[in-house]
Amino acid sequence: MKRKVQITTTMALKRKSKQFKWQRKHLLGLRDLSAEEITYILDTATGFEQVSRRSVKKAPPLRGKVVVNLFFEDSTRTRNSFALAANRLSADIIEFTKKASSVSKGETLLDTARNLEAMGIDIVVVRHNAGGASRFLSRNIKACVINAGDGFCEHPTQGLLDVYTIRKIKGSLDGLKIAIVGDIAHSRVARSDMWAMTKLGAEVTFVGPPTLMPAQANLLPVKMSYCLDEVIEKVDVINMLRIQFERLGGNPFPSIREYSHYFGLTVERMKRAKSDILVMHPGPINRGLEIESEVADGRNSVILEQVTNGLAVRMAVLFLVNQAAAQQKG
Amino acid sequence: MKRKVQITTTMALKRKSKQFKWQRKHLLGLRDLSAEEITYILDTATGFEQVSRRSVKKAPPLRGKVVVNLFFEDSTRTRNSFALAANRLSADIIEFTKKASSVSKGETLLDTARNLEAMGIDIVVVRHNAGGASRFLSRNIKACVINAGDGFCEHPTQGLLDVYTIRKIKGSLDGLKIAIVGDIAHSRVARSDMWAMTKLGAEVTFVGPPTLMPAQANLLPVKMSYCLDEVIEKVDVINMLRIQFERLGGNPFPSIREYSHYFGLTVERMKRAKSDILVMHPGPINRGLEIESEVADGRNSVILEQVTNGLAVRMAVLFLVNQAAAQQKG
Amino acid sequence: MKRKVQITTTMALKRKSKQFKWQRKHLLGLRDLSAEEITYILDTATGFEQVSRRSVKKAPPLRGKVVVNLFFEDSTRTRNSFALAANRLSADIIEFTKKASSVSKGETLLDTARNLEAMGIDIVVVRHNAGGASRFLSRNIKACVINAGDGFCEHPTQGLLDVYTIRKIKGSLDGLKIAIVGDIAHSRVARSDMWAMTKLGAEVTFVGPPTLMPAQANLLPVKMSYCLDEVIEKVDVINMLRIQFERLGGNPFPSIREYSHYFGLTVERMKRAKSDILVMHPGPINRGLEIESEVADGRNSVILEQVTNGLAVRMAVLFLVNQAAAQQKG
Repeated sequence: MKRKVQITTTMALKRKSKQFKWQRKHLLGLRDLSAEEITYILDTATGFEQVSRRSVKKAPPLRGKVVVNLFFEDSTRTRNSFALAANRLSADIIEFTKKASSVSKGETLLDTARNLEAMGIDIVVVRHNAGGASRFLSRNIKACVINAGDGFCEHPTQGLLDVYTIRKIKGSLDGLKIAIVGDIAHSRVARSDMWAMTKLGAEVTFVGPPTLMPAQANLLPVKMSYCLDEVIEKVDVINMLRIQFERLGGNPFPSIREYSHYFGLTVERMKRAKSDILVMHPGPINRGLEIESEVADGRNSVILEQVTNGLAVRMAVLFLVNQAAAQQKG
Repeated sequence: MKRKVQITTTMALKRKSKQFKWQRKHLLGLRDLSAEEITYILDTATGFEQVSRRSVKKAPPLRGKVVVNLFFEDSTRTRNSFALAANRLSADIIEFTKKASSVSKGETLLDTARNLEAMGIDIVVVRHNAGGASRFLSRNIKACVINAGDGFCEHPTQGLLDVYTIRKIKGSLDGLKIAIVGDIAHSRVARSDMWAMTKLGAEVTFVGPPTLMPAQANLLPVKMSYCLDEVIEKVDVINMLRIQFERLGGNPFPSIREYSHYFGLTVERMKRAKSDILVMHPGPINRGLEIESEVADGRNSVILEQVTNGLAVRMAVLFLVNQAAAQQKG
Repeated sequence: MKRKVQITTTMALKRKSKQFKWQRKHLLGLRDLSAEEITYILDTATGFEQVSRRSVKKAPPLRGKVVVNLFFEDSTRTRNSFALAANRLSADIIEFTKKASSVSKGETLLDTARNLEAMGIDIVVVRHNAGGASRFLSRNIKACVINAGDGFCEHPTQGLLDVYTIRKIKGSLDGLKIAIVGDIAHSRVARSDMWAMTKLGAEVTFVGPPTLMPAQANLLPVKMSYCLDEVIEKVDVINMLRIQFERLGGNPFPSIREYSHYFGLTVERMKRAKSDILVMHPGPINRGLEIESEVADGRNSVILEQVTNGLAVRMAVLFLVNQAAAQQKG
């Protein structure tokens, strides 16, 4: 979409961010982070965005460092994004992809990580189907740990790239109304988004059928709606979650067709949205299912910008945790 | 094989090549290319061949560029060759290997490529089982696209390395008689070879059983033969295609043994060939099937030279498309 | 474990090592190597250990060289260790992992390697389920060959890292008593350990049930025992082999539980061991099976040190074979 980039970020936060010193050597989830910390990552990412626009897309800060992509679940997008980000910072990257074994997962994870650490790994980027896996790791090894998705808990770099994308276009998240639509119950993206967005001042509404809503949602800092048609007119940003067929059990909705009818983002439905609504999707898209192709490729879509920004955000996170580790060492 | 390297390349072409300016940011097929363009790639490859002979096998022209190996079909040889070529030019390489999903392939391919592009990929090397996949990509993304094999259409870098190998030994392709033997119908190598060889002045004969000949072969700039024994005595170069068991359906020949009997390159058959015939094979070899081991490893075989030259040719192609993209940008 | 590092290595050997000139461009097994050669590798590894402790973990000696990881058997640990070692020496690494095809393995292996060589590979790190595979390769290609495990024969870099770890802590292997416990018959680690340890002056005892002992063990330079309880009190080092379920056929022991009872390294059994015994394991550990968790993580365990040292040893081996190849060329 064509748009003017407004750089009217809340100046108060920015000033705070100047004095702020990043001190975490792990990034496990956005629930733990303050608004200042999130803003600091976003500001750092803005700087790194330049690197990717250069003809020689390389910066030296992680030269001689080793990043391991420790993925116990399939992923190409997030894995490649971290690999490229590490690469761009001149780190070496080791790909370590395997299915979690069915027994004694905790032990396997820990032994695997300890072994990698013994080989002199500096940063572990970990995805695991057990919630809390990255936190468990961070308590047991000395390397920096970045959570690239743990169970249904968090996927913090996705949350960060989402707020980065919104902030870049809207200038600030303060006071924005944001809908997150779909299978909230099984979405770590929804959780990380929720923490980042609300901490930066947005109002978040989870939208989906009751069967796909999280348990004890009333304890979360969000509104809830079972009707997309009621919400679509009011929001500044809409984030359409992917229907993850591989995670659905127990027939949470009668049919795909019915789901699309009530919760899909169609051209028809978009007619009632604000003209400058941002349409987001964490990818990969099921075209014609949770979102129609015309909308995914339309003027309000920022789906590919999200991918581009993901690289800058991941460079920032790799850079910051490494810096914190270096300061804590000496 | 021991031989004198004749450097008596057609000087007219060479002079043209000097004035010539490469302008394509994609390499999709050799059908599109002029003799000048093909010669220009070969001349560029000659320069890069030196790099691989150095003790430090590195040149800097693609430093900070990202090449993605986007392979929807299994490949180790071509994939590794491109990876090494990219590496040798100091590019970073991302491996992205996946089976084409059974539904909506076009969309998947496009979404995948758009995502990679959004991550700042500069060059996409793509192999896909759908003919025209690379052309489709080139029309829809801004990155450079290199076809590493699309369906039964083209495999242009294989064609280039084949003519490179012949030119290096024979000096020129002008007037040479070349037989391409085997499963022509399912061979993208045969097609790319045909275009490159005929454009450079060679006379090409497709040899194989009628069931493995292409439809409408009479429209192609080649001769046809169903009898290897009639052809073997006359040709300067013979390219033995691999029997691709995985692609054969409908029993195109009664038995492997019968196929080998009529179309295999045996020691016996070689006795009637010219003494300086070049024996080529795109690999991997089915020893004892389309070619006997003694012939594959014999003095006329240039099969391993083809592999070596493939690296130089791929370096040249990566270098040229990147240069064209840079010129078109600024 | 807390310990004083004694650097009282046998000075005689060290002096010899100074005059010594490494001349092998392949590392196929430790059976072939003299004590001087083994010591020379260990001394070289000591130097490289520093590189891994630097902030920028890079040294330039293999810049522009290409190392291929040619693994026909699954491996993450050894493969990653070689990749990191190559990386740290600034080499480029190509990953080539595939299951050995069921037919004509020899040919496939050779053709694969010849192709890689034709692409300008400098060093092939090969793991294959056929004993002698690396030796076969070394006789047929010009690149350097490093055996990363061949059948039940040898795994020389594991043997080297084991003696490196012992020497680093105990100062010397001369006169040490070492037990290697478990499935000796199917263990290439046991064989490489045996050669390295005995050549450096240690006394090695193989311990395990008779069904898991090697044939013609009386021809080997080791003692044998079928009773861990008889051996545990006397040894300075105990190396617990992994039970490799995937390799066991024919029910070599009545049950896992019974195996653990007689041959597992338990807390109970450790009470009768020397207080400064070194507990080793080549990994990955089956916790609670051949070794109890408390022992694996206990103060006598050097299991993670082995992993760390593996990197230094592999850097040394890559460095030395490359140097020998360069000297033999010019």
